[in-house]
Amino acid sequence: MNILDIIDKKVKKIELTQAEIEFLVNGYLDGSIPDYQMSSLLMAILLNGMTEKETVALTEVMLGSGDKISFDFNVVDKHSTGGVGDKTTLVLIPLVASLGTKVAKMSGRGLGHTGGTIDKLESIPGFKTEMTVDELKQEVLEIGAAIAGQTGNLCPADKKIYALRDVTGTVASIPLIASSIMSKKLASGANNIVIDLKVGEGALMTNIEDARALANLMIKIGKAFGKKVITVLTNMNEPLGYAVGNALEVEEAINTLNGQGPKDLEELVINLAALMISLDQNIPMEILIENVETALKNGNALEKFKEIVNYQGGNIDNIVTAQNIIPVKAPKSGYVKSISALKIGELARRLGAGRLAKGDEIDHTVGIVLTKKVGDEVTEGEVIAKIYSNKTLIPEKDVSECFEITDLKVNKSQLIYEIIK
Amino acid sequence: MNILDIIDKKVKKIELTQAEIEFLVNGYLDGSIPDYQMSSLLMAILLNGMTEKETVALTEVMLGSGDKISFDFNVVDKHSTGGVGDKTTLVLIPLVASLGTKVAKMSGRGLGHTGGTIDKLESIPGFKTEMTVDELKQEVLEIGAAIAGQTGNLCPADKKIYALRDVTGTVASIPLIASSIMSKKLASGANNIVIDLKVGEGALMTNIEDARALANLMIKIGKAFGKKVITVLTNMNEPLGYAVGNALEVEEAINTLNGQGPKDLEELVINLAALMISLDQNIPMEILIENVETALKNGNALEKFKEIVNYQGGNIDNIVTAQNIIPVKAPKSGYVKSISALKIGELARRLGAGRLAKGDEIDHTVGIVLTKKVGDEVTEGEVIAKIYSNKTLIPEKDVSECFEITDLKVNKSQLIYEIIK
Repeated sequence: MNILDIIDKKVKKIELTQAEIEFLVNGYLDGSIPDYQMSSLLMAILLNGMTEKETVALTEVMLGSGDKISFDFNVVDKHSTGGVGDKTTLVLIPLVASLGTKVAKMSGRGLGHTGGTIDKLESIPGFKTEMTVDELKQEVLEIGAAIAGQTGNLCPADKKIYALRDVTGTVASIPLIASSIMSKKLASGANNIVIDLKVGEGALMTNIEDARALANLMIKIGKAFGKKVITVLTNMNEPLGYAVGNALEVEEAINTLNGQGPKDLEELVINLAALMISLDQNIPMEILIENVETALKNGNALEKFKEIVNYQGGNIDNIVTAQNIIPVKAPKSGYVKSISALKIGELARRLGAGRLAKGDEIDHTVGIVLTKKVGDEVTEGEVIAKIYSNKTLIPEKDVSECFEITDLKVNKSQLIYEIIK
Repeated sequence: MNILDIIDKKVKKIELTQAEIEFLVNGYLDGSIPDYQMSSLLMAILLNGMTEKETVALTEVMLGSGDKISFDFNVVDKHSTGGVGDKTTLVLIPLVASLGTKVAKMSGRGLGHTGGTIDKLESIPGFKTEMTVDELKQEVLEIGAAIAGQTGNLCPADKKIYALRDVTGTVASIPLIASSIMSKKLASGANNIVIDLKVGEGALMTNIEDARALANLMIKIGKAFGKKVITVLTNMNEPLGYAVGNALEVEEAINTLNGQGPKDLEELVINLAALMISLDQNIPMEILIENVETALKNGNALEKFKEIVNYQGGNIDNIVTAQNIIPVKAPKSGYVKSISALKIGELARRLGAGRLAKGDEIDHTVGIVLTKKVGDEVTEGEVIAKIYSNKTLIPEKDVSECFEITDLKVNKSQLIYEIIK
């Protein structure tokens, strides 16, 4: 078996065997297949695709390349494909745990213009996100939930392949995305997985057809490994909620746990929580919605959040946001037609909320807080957003080009496009 | 400008600009673009193609990456895309020069299962193939022809890209092949170029449609640089002539220059020579055929060959071939249906006539001499080929599987498929 024959098969659209996929993933991991051959193959996969069988095989080989976590009890997991203002995890995990469903959530850092849960949590002074597998298990056992960074040596093959895809223009392959997400989810030991698949200008998937294909593929992979996977396709054309930026998003998450959240974020967490609990406890989702809403209102979810924060050493009383607040005013009266998630994400990144290069320090205190959402009416000169900055100079144009205001009435955006099981 | 945007454009089939092609070729040559990004792009080009404009731009940039040879007089060049038993250059160059057309031929070494003119010439004791550009020019000026290895620093970008294509499964791209061949031909300073484009199982192009596309693309590139290019599509399903292997092929070339050559080789050199002279002297090809045939019969072409060999320090009286000659016998009576150029080439390579790894020493004395060609009648037990070997053990199967004998009468193969101007 040799890599050139495997590349040639993929060029000719001949299905690769399990043995060939093992050969190439293991060879890439051990260095016997160099980057330049792997990237050639990855491009051939991007352009010629992979069959479902190949994708399941790739997932299995990547899953087998590292540690697998297993729990002595049922655990449910949630994954988001990444968005702007996406603080869902911060609300959802304590909410679900407050209703008796165990969650062990491993999260990542910000990538490009999208934020990461771990960065957000680190704006809580003292909060520890690095823990061992045993510590993670212990926390879930004791208080029903934990949110940690990647722990253990999970899917090192995926990690190495993902890093190469990132610098070779081969990210946007649906089978590669599906196997990357699913290998990590399978390695982290959950029985049931709910995936929030963001769709829109600010997301990995920019159109609904690709998102549906990815959703169905992930569900099929889950099935091949005996796991239940549900995907929820949600709108990522405008930021989720109002706050974008680490500490600002934590504050908004706490408000939401207090029953004071933005409507779109609340709608999303209620639905995702009901789905997660329904999978775990085998109860129809519809019956659960009311319980979930109650947990957000009666303080139970917030209590669970505080419990997690305390357990992991954090203190929510001392969250700091930037002092320098610059109002952004509407240039004309009308209706907000669009708020570009992509541009707001890029702006936040430039303010220091995200990284421009790997390993950059981030500024947890900065970001943007919208005061209007798509569909809202605005008057000329009215504040539509506030910039929280520690840098004084932000080009006016960078801010104004995030918003589009029109004379005609605009409908609110639909948040949840569809649920695919 | 950055390489990821260029890769992304190629994935989306958007035409690259001249500036982008310059950026990527120069960046690859100076090391600022690493192998793994270039190979990703090369695979995208293999699968998504290049426009004619992109191909001309790539040729121009590769041509500009190194030295360009120029002559004070008109020079004609010939290129073969490589085959098995292809000793055409050895006959053609002296033949053309004997009729007053100047040729400066730069040749290469064997690649894979195909032989190389430089390796063949080195079976002539003393023959010097390495020379400077000035020495090459001087020889052409004095005796009208020269055959040398690559001289000067021609197209270093092509060299580096070709080496990467070879190990990343991206060789078989028609625009990449066209720009690679043409950049080298343009750099070597000829005004008129005749290309012998081999088609068949033993060649780079395995079908006539791809060969036609490549031919037309090379003609267009030539036109863009003000050069006349003619391509001749020729059969490479069976070896050319009878001899395969370096010294054996030199002997067959000398016989051909003596009017005693195999019919197919003779037909090819006569047509190629007439085309080259007709381009150079602007005389219709048909009128030249008789002159060319005469030069092969009256000893003028052979004299010119000896003149070149002497000039370059060689001595044709001491060419050595292997002593150990193993006859291959027909397993049954019938007609020769096929003689696989690919398998014969591989066999010769394993005998030592070619290299299995870069830098391997080759054995100039070994090879195969066919005694039958496709269409010939054979009797069971009759010798159909002779193996010239210095290794005693050649598996019987390796030899027998090169030949196919059938009961039904078989037509001789057509050698020249078409001439494309």
